[in-house]
Amino acid sequence: MRVITFGEIMLRFAPEGYNRLFQTPVFNGTFGGGEANVAVSLANFGVDAGFVTKLPENPIAEACVRELRGFGVDVSNIARGGERMGVYYMEKGASCRPSNVIYDRAHSSISTAVASDFDWDKIFDGADWFHFTGITPALSDELANITLTAVKVAKSKGLSVSCDLNYRKKLWSRERTGMVMSTLMPYVDLCICNEEDAKDVFNISADGTDIEKGSLSREGYKGVAKKLVERFGFKRVAITLRESFSANDNDWSAMLYDGVEAHFSNKYSLHIVDRVGGGDSFGAGLIYGFVNGYSNKDALEFAVASSALKHTIEGDFNRVSVKEVESLLKNGGSGRVQR
Amino acid sequence: MRVITFGEIMLRFAPEGYNRLFQTPVFNGTFGGGEANVAVSLANFGVDAGFVTKLPENPIAEACVRELRGFGVDVSNIARGGERMGVYYMEKGASCRPSNVIYDRAHSSISTAVASDFDWDKIFDGADWFHFTGITPALSDELANITLTAVKVAKSKGLSVSCDLNYRKKLWSRERTGMVMSTLMPYVDLCICNEEDAKDVFNISADGTDIEKGSLSREGYKGVAKKLVERFGFKRVAITLRESFSANDNDWSAMLYDGVEAHFSNKYSLHIVDRVGGGDSFGAGLIYGFVNGYSNKDALEFAVASSALKHTIEGDFNRVSVKEVESLLKNGGSGRVQR
Amino acid sequence: MRVITFGEIMLRFAPEGYNRLFQTPVFNGTFGGGEANVAVSLANFGVDAGFVTKLPENPIAEACVRELRGFGVDVSNIARGGERMGVYYMEKGASCRPSNVIYDRAHSSISTAVASDFDWDKIFDGADWFHFTGITPALSDELANITLTAVKVAKSKGLSVSCDLNYRKKLWSRERTGMVMSTLMPYVDLCICNEEDAKDVFNISADGTDIEKGSLSREGYKGVAKKLVERFGFKRVAITLRESFSANDNDWSAMLYDGVEAHFSNKYSLHIVDRVGGGDSFGAGLIYGFVNGYSNKDALEFAVASSALKHTIEGDFNRVSVKEVESLLKNGGSGRVQR
Amino acid sequence: MRVITFGEIMLRFAPEGYNRLFQTPVFNGTFGGGEANVAVSLANFGVDAGFVTKLPENPIAEACVRELRGFGVDVSNIARGGERMGVYYMEKGASCRPSNVIYDRAHSSISTAVASDFDWDKIFDGADWFHFTGITPALSDELANITLTAVKVAKSKGLSVSCDLNYRKKLWSRERTGMVMSTLMPYVDLCICNEEDAKDVFNISADGTDIEKGSLSREGYKGVAKKLVERFGFKRVAITLRESFSANDNDWSAMLYDGVEAHFSNKYSLHIVDRVGGGDSFGAGLIYGFVNGYSNKDALEFAVASSALKHTIEGDFNRVSVKEVESLLKNGGSGRVQR
Amino acid sequence: MRVITFGEIMLRFAPEGYNRLFQTPVFNGTFGGGEANVAVSLANFGVDAGFVTKLPENPIAEACVRELRGFGVDVSNIARGGERMGVYYMEKGASCRPSNVIYDRAHSSISTAVASDFDWDKIFDGADWFHFTGITPALSDELANITLTAVKVAKSKGLSVSCDLNYRKKLWSRERTGMVMSTLMPYVDLCICNEEDAKDVFNISADGTDIEKGSLSREGYKGVAKKLVERFGFKRVAITLRESFSANDNDWSAMLYDGVEAHFSNKYSLHIVDRVGGGDSFGAGLIYGFVNGYSNKDALEFAVASSALKHTIEGDFNRVSVKEVESLLKNGGSGRVQR
Amino acid sequence: MRVITFGEIMLRFAPEGYNRLFQTPVFNGTFGGGEANVAVSLANFGVDAGFVTKLPENPIAEACVRELRGFGVDVSNIARGGERMGVYYMEKGASCRPSNVIYDRAHSSISTAVASDFDWDKIFDGADWFHFTGITPALSDELANITLTAVKVAKSKGLSVSCDLNYRKKLWSRERTGMVMSTLMPYVDLCICNEEDAKDVFNISADGTDIEKGSLSREGYKGVAKKLVERFGFKRVAITLRESFSANDNDWSAMLYDGVEAHFSNKYSLHIVDRVGGGDSFGAGLIYGFVNGYSNKDALEFAVASSALKHTIEGDFNRVSVKEVESLLKNGGSGRVQR
Repeated sequence: MRVITFGEIMLRFAPEGYNRLFQTPVFNGTFGGGEANVAVSLANFGVDAGFVTKLPENPIAEACVRELRGFGVDVSNIARGGERMGVYYMEKGASCRPSNVIYDRAHSSISTAVASDFDWDKIFDGADWFHFTGITPALSDELANITLTAVKVAKSKGLSVSCDLNYRKKLWSRERTGMVMSTLMPYVDLCICNEEDAKDVFNISADGTDIEKGSLSREGYKGVAKKLVERFGFKRVAITLRESFSANDNDWSAMLYDGVEAHFSNKYSLHIVDRVGGGDSFGAGLIYGFVNGYSNKDALEFAVASSALKHTIEGDFNRVSVKEVESLLKNGGSGRVQR
Repeated sequence: MRVITFGEIMLRFAPEGYNRLFQTPVFNGTFGGGEANVAVSLANFGVDAGFVTKLPENPIAEACVRELRGFGVDVSNIARGGERMGVYYMEKGASCRPSNVIYDRAHSSISTAVASDFDWDKIFDGADWFHFTGITPALSDELANITLTAVKVAKSKGLSVSCDLNYRKKLWSRERTGMVMSTLMPYVDLCICNEEDAKDVFNISADGTDIEKGSLSREGYKGVAKKLVERFGFKRVAITLRESFSANDNDWSAMLYDGVEAHFSNKYSLHIVDRVGGGDSFGAGLIYGFVNGYSNKDALEFAVASSALKHTIEGDFNRVSVKEVESLLKNGGSGRVQR
Repeated sequence: MRVITFGEIMLRFAPEGYNRLFQTPVFNGTFGGGEANVAVSLANFGVDAGFVTKLPENPIAEACVRELRGFGVDVSNIARGGERMGVYYMEKGASCRPSNVIYDRAHSSISTAVASDFDWDKIFDGADWFHFTGITPALSDELANITLTAVKVAKSKGLSVSCDLNYRKKLWSRERTGMVMSTLMPYVDLCICNEEDAKDVFNISADGTDIEKGSLSREGYKGVAKKLVERFGFKRVAITLRESFSANDNDWSAMLYDGVEAHFSNKYSLHIVDRVGGGDSFGAGLIYGFVNGYSNKDALEFAVASSALKHTIEGDFNRVSVKEVESLLKNGGSGRVQR
Repeated sequence: MRVITFGEIMLRFAPEGYNRLFQTPVFNGTFGGGEANVAVSLANFGVDAGFVTKLPENPIAEACVRELRGFGVDVSNIARGGERMGVYYMEKGASCRPSNVIYDRAHSSISTAVASDFDWDKIFDGADWFHFTGITPALSDELANITLTAVKVAKSKGLSVSCDLNYRKKLWSRERTGMVMSTLMPYVDLCICNEEDAKDVFNISADGTDIEKGSLSREGYKGVAKKLVERFGFKRVAITLRESFSANDNDWSAMLYDGVEAHFSNKYSLHIVDRVGGGDSFGAGLIYGFVNGYSNKDALEFAVASSALKHTIEGDFNRVSVKEVESLLKNGGSGRVQR
Repeated sequence: MRVITFGEIMLRFAPEGYNRLFQTPVFNGTFGGGEANVAVSLANFGVDAGFVTKLPENPIAEACVRELRGFGVDVSNIARGGERMGVYYMEKGASCRPSNVIYDRAHSSISTAVASDFDWDKIFDGADWFHFTGITPALSDELANITLTAVKVAKSKGLSVSCDLNYRKKLWSRERTGMVMSTLMPYVDLCICNEEDAKDVFNISADGTDIEKGSLSREGYKGVAKKLVERFGFKRVAITLRESFSANDNDWSAMLYDGVEAHFSNKYSLHIVDRVGGGDSFGAGLIYGFVNGYSNKDALEFAVASSALKHTIEGDFNRVSVKEVESLLKNGGSGRVQR
Repeated sequence: MRVITFGEIMLRFAPEGYNRLFQTPVFNGTFGGGEANVAVSLANFGVDAGFVTKLPENPIAEACVRELRGFGVDVSNIARGGERMGVYYMEKGASCRPSNVIYDRAHSSISTAVASDFDWDKIFDGADWFHFTGITPALSDELANITLTAVKVAKSKGLSVSCDLNYRKKLWSRERTGMVMSTLMPYVDLCICNEEDAKDVFNISADGTDIEKGSLSREGYKGVAKKLVERFGFKRVAITLRESFSANDNDWSAMLYDGVEAHFSNKYSLHIVDRVGGGDSFGAGLIYGFVNGYSNKDALEFAVASSALKHTIEGDFNRVSVKEVESLLKNGGSGRVQR
């Protein structure tokens, strides 16, 4: 099975440990970005995953390509040219101090890409699944159009399409988001989001009666999913459920609505190493399940377990194997040493 | 508003991570000390803060001055001369193993300073607040006298004066402490301490009836504060309330008694990155509140929130802005990523 | 008092922090191994401890000897020769991701040692206690025979003998383990194990009625210990009780059965820095207690407290003093800074 | 004496040691840029130096300001706003492999600054010297105009003006450079360059007869300087003379032409730690000499010695004191340990 | 053009900087080995390079495969199974202290590989060149036979074959080397060696008259090459010429004999960063030249320049592009910063 | 053979690489001091070496003792007590920037030691050689007296005594040095110094005719040695000859005068890693030679070779074996990789 993802990959600089920015000159320099994270996670699961983006021609982009290719991600459809890679700075939070992300992503090669950079017919040849997030069309008007072309070609060639809404208020306004995303959604089979995304992007929220004690009830989440299905005709809607107690401690679970039934996953109490890419690893797990014919419930549990593991791993990428996800599903997270 | 603090700043060497001393040759070398920590925290809040001490003339002290000046602390009243800077070694604790601090501070330039090193009339020119801790007069008899001169000049020039009792049993005996501190307290407006300090320094403790289950009740803390006010005429007494479950996990709150009412703050459950300087950041928060005309309750909450954040930051200094403290006060410490 | 331990010491390579293997090129290279860990811990307690093994003649083994000698461990009975030191790779787990240990220990000098490498009569001269673990006889048939010789000589010279069952399924089958260990046990006074070891090695488990809610009751652990005493005539059986909630959080306690009474220790809730060597540090604490004439209960509490501290320390070795263990026993693990 | 410099300061990321980019994830993150380097070097010499630029409002720029302020550089005239700080990546060369610098500086706050960001009349108040480089006007047409305004105001207020030609072919063409720079030069008193700059920017080169063995003779350098003086009316022209044998080994000296005489400095054989900022430290040394009334020859020797020291220091900034430069001038570079 | 190399790749642990083994616990963990180094270097030159070996099934070998794949090396013919990867420890020398390499490579998966692990007919499909070194057949008798099969199949399919003699006295005796290598050489087109290899492996040395001042004259090197050609019928013989003045400073050049003429390359004076893999990078450069139709002289100069660059790069792999080699050939190694 | 050395051992903090102090917070923390360096070097040569000093009772001193014991140095005669260990800060020089050492050694335990801390009769039991340096008596008047007692007891028990003059102008004046050292010298058999020491301490310098081109001729060095022998009756005088071209590059050799003949050693051109402890390693090499019955010439060559190697090793201690020194003596310093 072959999965294609499309979006931006950035340089990521994080000061060592829990240091604040420039408290120490020692930085950890890696790469990451929503759709690339999904591709890497799938490649680590043994899936034939390809990542489509545009990168400049310089040694930093070469290193990025080398990293992706090392994981087994197909990099042959990465367009080259443009000015720069986006950069993001990541200050790891602790306890009551939240993680802080500073973006320097404007003018990146991908955000200035043009339609002719991507030959979707060729890119989707032999592919089964296409995944993008709400960040990609937000990068520029041209990117929004390119994404529309991509989903149309994908559907015409029989691919399944998934989208993680991933609303970023710094990239676009709610108005433009809603308008653009509404043109893309009809081509999407699997919509991944959290409760806030649905509200921010499509102004869809739970009915009053579905809310208890200030947060959504199970019925509330199901209601949001149902509305999304009704409006856009998704086959499935997945909603991640994060309860954030502190920067270190989160509960993590998810719901999958298949148009009929709402499946709620096991809940993981996480002591976090790095939560960036948590949602992406959930998407990758879900796609892995579906391209391998898992049941809705099994795909959901696989996705939540794999993304629970992501929270224990430094960097954007989910460096876990199917065997490790299955071990967590089978043995639970008691953390006995594996010898 | 201008705030002056007076005391010792030391070199701080900490082995990397949770390593014990010399388990690895890799050390983190920084600077810190109670009164300097207050000045840095205030400077980070945008306050015009000056730090007064004595430092030797060598490249290490130059680096210390450079660090302080970088934060915007006024270093123009630092006397130069003497033999050395004090050093302290910090071994970070974890779980049931407490942090371990080893002092090598004898014979430091500040501990051998003389009265003529400081022209208090000039130093306090244009200043609104003077802060010192119980460590400063403990460093030498001369320092005790210098501190007495300082508080007298401060009061004569209309400054508010705050003192953090900060009892260190390795520096002086309870007897000498009580005697010396009693001469200084009449000039103090705001007394900051914890329950043990009050007992160690002034032999003031709660009445039997105020104690419940081995620890002080709210009434007990109020009683201690009341006795302090009665004995020394403080305008306000602030008591920090730390509940230490392990080297990693503490609850943190505080009480402020204004002579009439005892205000108890919100309580923060902390997962600690570095707790050294926690009390100092509380003092800085309180001073920030008062020089900015906050109510007693608001100043208290600001101080506790800012010191809660300090526990998430490596090193002695509280590297947070007013905006970050206010965000914690407003949003709580759920640790959602700031993008 | 003089204690001799016998077994393998390996090179240990761990990627920095919580990184997965080769996520970063930065590794921490140290040494460790069950019996060496016991010797180092005892030396840190001031006991005259000697470690017996075989090491190759190369700079890596020299560094290992230097490290052991630094702790004060007697290295004069380490045989030299053979091909290599064993290596193990340690990936530190977090939350629901368990620590992962990869062994590369075959063909090590100790695993290819021969009887003539060790003159037990000389080695045990002046010694009071001999300790080994189930790993040592598992390394080769020759090692099993050498260990048998060692325990026989030890008993003939009046030493107390302790054995930590320490079953490693990658080293030998349950069948061979049971057979070999059964020949050694009659010479053992103190048997240290956990409930699984007893089952894996000797097929001894609790009676059905001793089990409650899927885990053993207090009566169950006592029952296992009793059966062990009955079968092999141990004077004492110690069982460590680990409740693993996650890779970060464990509860830790132990039971000591003296043939009559089962003593249960205080329980420590641990936030783990490094749990490798936890069992070894327990064994060392127990031996320390017994060679110093502690009561069964006091030895048990000392052992559990010292191994609780081990969980807060990086690397295999328990770098704590008797004073620090006693401080934990006296003050509890509230983690107040030691100034 | 007060010196103002004007230009861009960038983030600088360099992989640890001699690693190529992303050979290791460990980066050293610092700050640097031609005109900032001059200001920092002057501040380290005790000169009242101010740096003028525009920086965005984010924690990275805050850290940059903190760093500059720490050195004692006046940061009060730094405009705030815009999108980002420029970044440059630095791969340290060795032997036959040259250092490699990758710029990502487009769209920086300073390159998008407007005239109203800077009040030159106020900025130059009390100042004696203004320094800029050829990079500043190259950043944008607006910057070229702003620089022209600056030099006009500077001259009108009696400041001396120096310019380091510093031609960067990636920033602008030779044609535009020549045109723009020619409008600025009439306001410049001291022109700093190397032989290539003179040719690249103004098409000024030595006469054929001045060339021997493929490189310029002393007469040739003097000839270039003379032509520059004749064309633009500089009071002085300084030309740095680098002989590059390898990325590690360079000879370093300079010439100063005062309109009459050409002074050639002592030559230093350098084993390089970091050569970025070498030219800037030369400029700073020269300015230091002139604002302190040194003779042409003495200023030149001070400048060359201070820039020789720069080559031994990591990062862009020249972290040396006047005392250290004088020690090199007096004792030579034999490298005896200072105890 | 497609090139296949065959041999062992090992883990490489080097203490940070110039530290001796275990002077610091900080190690740099990478991968390397003669034939893998050639494949990586070729892949960095844009050649379709495949590496054939056998690796165990564990996360360390996965990381090794990930690293190779990242460079673009075809890893699809790596057999999996066996016990372990070989390890080597590298202590970097300086001045009069030589680098020290400690091998722990016995029992590695490749050294215990069997003939059925490799389907040479399939492996060589579409390939143009096969490269191995004298280390591969030295690993075991089976490996010697496998290598013989490989070269026979290679020749039968029309591939060019190159061999770097690479004598390692710790792996086999001169007698066995000579015997085994003599059976392989008739299939070799290009023989790469140094003067010592020729003597150690085949007892071929220069005639007395060819020796001047204790080292070989140009005629001497030509004489050795001529004898090699006469004995084994090589088309070409390349001899690297290293003059080692210290661990830091070497002169580096080479000779290529084409059966008629002896070409001597330019000589590079190197200040060494890491010389391991220097010979391998020379071989890769030569192969690159020949598969791209370079003349003998041009291929030689390309090879020497690319291996000169290798000496400036940390680790076994030559991380340079064709463009960088060509820049060195064109501009020389003066080390001017590339901006 | 047993050798005793007596003096101070300090903490040594050096910033990573070539960074200036506090340019980075990363420090390397180790231990070192002239006489300890000699003891460690001798222990590395397999000599039974004991180090005598006084250290405080704290974890830092424990770590120091652990380090020394690891090398095999006898630490049983280290007195315990007093306030602190001395500290020194080491900034590594490069090229024309010299290394910079900042001492913070006043008030150390050894500098406040008293006569009763050392039982010389017991310490020298079974010993053959006693070594001290001019630093030890300079630490305090009491230390001068203790050293006098030590040399007297040493001579009375038949030990050979060596002294490295090691003049430190920051510790004492030339006047006091000359007076004190003159009382100690009559007990010294082997005097180690450099030309400056002889002049600084005893005002002994070469005759005018012995000087050529600003530095001493061979005859000049011999003349100084002869005068020393004449004044104090030394059996041998060794003078180290350092030619310092830069902080990186030194030539290193030595002379040994045996009362009759002056032996001049081979000269080593060094590319320096760390030169601190160079003289100490020379002394250790000389003592090693003499206690092993080497001829004057052989001892000298061994000493110079071992100290040449020291310059390639980080830290104060000379981490080389006799085998490595002999390899340098035999093979020269061409730096071929040892495999």
